[in-house]
Amino acid sequence: MKIKYERLKQENNTKARYGLLHTNYGTFETPMFMPVGTLANVKTLTPEELKAMNSAVVLSNTYHLWLRPGEDVVDHAGGLHKFMNYDGPILTDSGGFQVFSLAKNKKKDIVEEGVHFKSHLDGKALFLTPELSIQIQNKLDSDIAMSFDECPPYPVTYDYMKASVERTIRWAERGKAVHSNPRQSLFGIVQGGEFEDLRRWSAEETVKLDFDGYSIGGTSVGEDKDTMYKMIDYAVPYLPEDKPRYLMGVGDPIDIIEGVIRGIDMFDCVLPTRIARHGNAFTRTGKINIKNAKFKEDFTPLEENCDCYTCKNYTKSYIRHLIVCDESLGGRLLSIHNIRFLIRLTEELREAIKEDRLIEYKEEFLEKYQ
Amino acid sequence: MKIKYERLKQENNTKARYGLLHTNYGTFETPMFMPVGTLANVKTLTPEELKAMNSAVVLSNTYHLWLRPGEDVVDHAGGLHKFMNYDGPILTDSGGFQVFSLAKNKKKDIVEEGVHFKSHLDGKALFLTPELSIQIQNKLDSDIAMSFDECPPYPVTYDYMKASVERTIRWAERGKAVHSNPRQSLFGIVQGGEFEDLRRWSAEETVKLDFDGYSIGGTSVGEDKDTMYKMIDYAVPYLPEDKPRYLMGVGDPIDIIEGVIRGIDMFDCVLPTRIARHGNAFTRTGKINIKNAKFKEDFTPLEENCDCYTCKNYTKSYIRHLIVCDESLGGRLLSIHNIRFLIRLTEELREAIKEDRLIEYKEEFLEKYQ
Repeated sequence: MKIKYERLKQENNTKARYGLLHTNYGTFETPMFMPVGTLANVKTLTPEELKAMNSAVVLSNTYHLWLRPGEDVVDHAGGLHKFMNYDGPILTDSGGFQVFSLAKNKKKDIVEEGVHFKSHLDGKALFLTPELSIQIQNKLDSDIAMSFDECPPYPVTYDYMKASVERTIRWAERGKAVHSNPRQSLFGIVQGGEFEDLRRWSAEETVKLDFDGYSIGGTSVGEDKDTMYKMIDYAVPYLPEDKPRYLMGVGDPIDIIEGVIRGIDMFDCVLPTRIARHGNAFTRTGKINIKNAKFKEDFTPLEENCDCYTCKNYTKSYIRHLIVCDESLGGRLLSIHNIRFLIRLTEELREAIKEDRLIEYKEEFLEKYQ
Repeated sequence: MKIKYERLKQENNTKARYGLLHTNYGTFETPMFMPVGTLANVKTLTPEELKAMNSAVVLSNTYHLWLRPGEDVVDHAGGLHKFMNYDGPILTDSGGFQVFSLAKNKKKDIVEEGVHFKSHLDGKALFLTPELSIQIQNKLDSDIAMSFDECPPYPVTYDYMKASVERTIRWAERGKAVHSNPRQSLFGIVQGGEFEDLRRWSAEETVKLDFDGYSIGGTSVGEDKDTMYKMIDYAVPYLPEDKPRYLMGVGDPIDIIEGVIRGIDMFDCVLPTRIARHGNAFTRTGKINIKNAKFKEDFTPLEENCDCYTCKNYTKSYIRHLIVCDESLGGRLLSIHNIRFLIRLTEELREAIKEDRLIEYKEEFLEKYQ
């Protein structure tokens, strides 16, 4: 079946909403944070570990799976859920962002038909089109597929962005036309950079195509935070109340709070796992780097009140030792903590929405978080 | 308390024995395989995962922990069990093997007092003595400490080996004299290379010093299998029946079977985790490399009848994908399988001993294992 969004509560003082996302693999509360499983695994972690952190949707990358192992392997395995042994909902992105960020030498040739670029692995010439992206995602059999869009860098001229969003709408239409997996939902992507009228136009035209959900793209591409928040503000008023809204590639705790306040339901980001591998941990008082010498004999958990597996069982001293020695268990333990940190943040945000005290929650959070 | 070995059954047709090892952290059956947690973690794995594979004793490396994080950090954490959150028995080696195998440029200067060598990390000059090794292990607070020995390369001359085993005996005595952790057992190490009389002499002299257990060292240093088996045969008759016997650094399945037949109770090896990181898996028909193209669409588990977490949940195709993409979850899943493979092998060997059919078991195993 297609996913279904059910809004249960609109917060009184902000645009934030508490709701439920009904999926093929159960019903989950929103706002939610979705960990990223680039290559059909959330780096270092098992599905059981994700479930233990109360994780719901996992995101996987169409571009990466297209190259390795190839969508046919995943298809023959019985789809991505069976392939990676995850019986929770999976969202696949379209590959558009990776073409933008990973193409070899960042060179690409965008034509009406699609994008010519070179593989980041071996430089092989590749051509990704809106139709091919959807066809790959149909085979991957994720629960939610994304439309193939152009994700322009920041900043570009108004004229460039106007031409780009118009093409992205045409691409969205083309992708939707070939989408053929009845149990897979399809989201449209709103682009338009920092231009208010283009965001509005993009949102309205995308909504006309009637997708199962809408995401806001072109964020986290180098713009400052205020600009990012404006991008959300410019688009959200034109998105339907009965469909989920997904802010792509955003995982900074403050940005999640600001996004929720602006009416966003879903977030994803590699941040919690990427910073983990470099020894960083989220805490309520800000990010810490566990390699810091002051943690050498710190026999307390990363956070005293954290309920994650890592904090219940390991000390900063031990995790520091593992990271300093390049033991991958260190990145694994920090990944568990960091993902749980963001999921717990969304749990608290949901409670704050239900009680109409989201602004107070934000102020309390910001007071501690440096 | 000190460990205590209880022999429950002597096999009728071989020197194999089934027994119990009573430790500070519970009682475990022997023969047993001990996974290696070099730097206070079995690479990629948590203690819970080790327990789920029915793992008992874990080995950790004194040399490595001496350098990082330092025995004082572990001591201040409350000992190695608390530091690494493992409430099962831990054995620490003496550092002797690492001095032999890891010293920078393999250069070392062995004097009566100890060994001068350079750190494999930064080339810093280090000096390890029998006393220091034991003092470090006392602080690490492992359940079983090993005497500091010289582990000569293979082959060396008879005269070199004779002088070496004589010094190793003096070192064993010196280490024992400073050993001061009442809850930690101390093992002696039999050396002597491939020389029958030196193995016997080393065994007899070591036993005179009255250790809590005895290990056979100087194996897995380049000798062929028949020579290794002889080294065991030369020593075992002179070891007491009421103490555990530990063959160091041996983890090849056939060697474990041959060792058990020769009266060995304990084995350790980095093999299952090391080969895992390179994509290799033990199976009943021999080792396989999962990167092989033939596994690309093999949607069966590594082994149909394996009871490990990996085999119950993942396919060869998926594990291959992870390994090919350098995702550490791949090495983690293979490590789980490989360790469980060796532990299960020892479980079957114990049953075979109880039923006096060890030789038949070996023949059946070898028939399939290539």
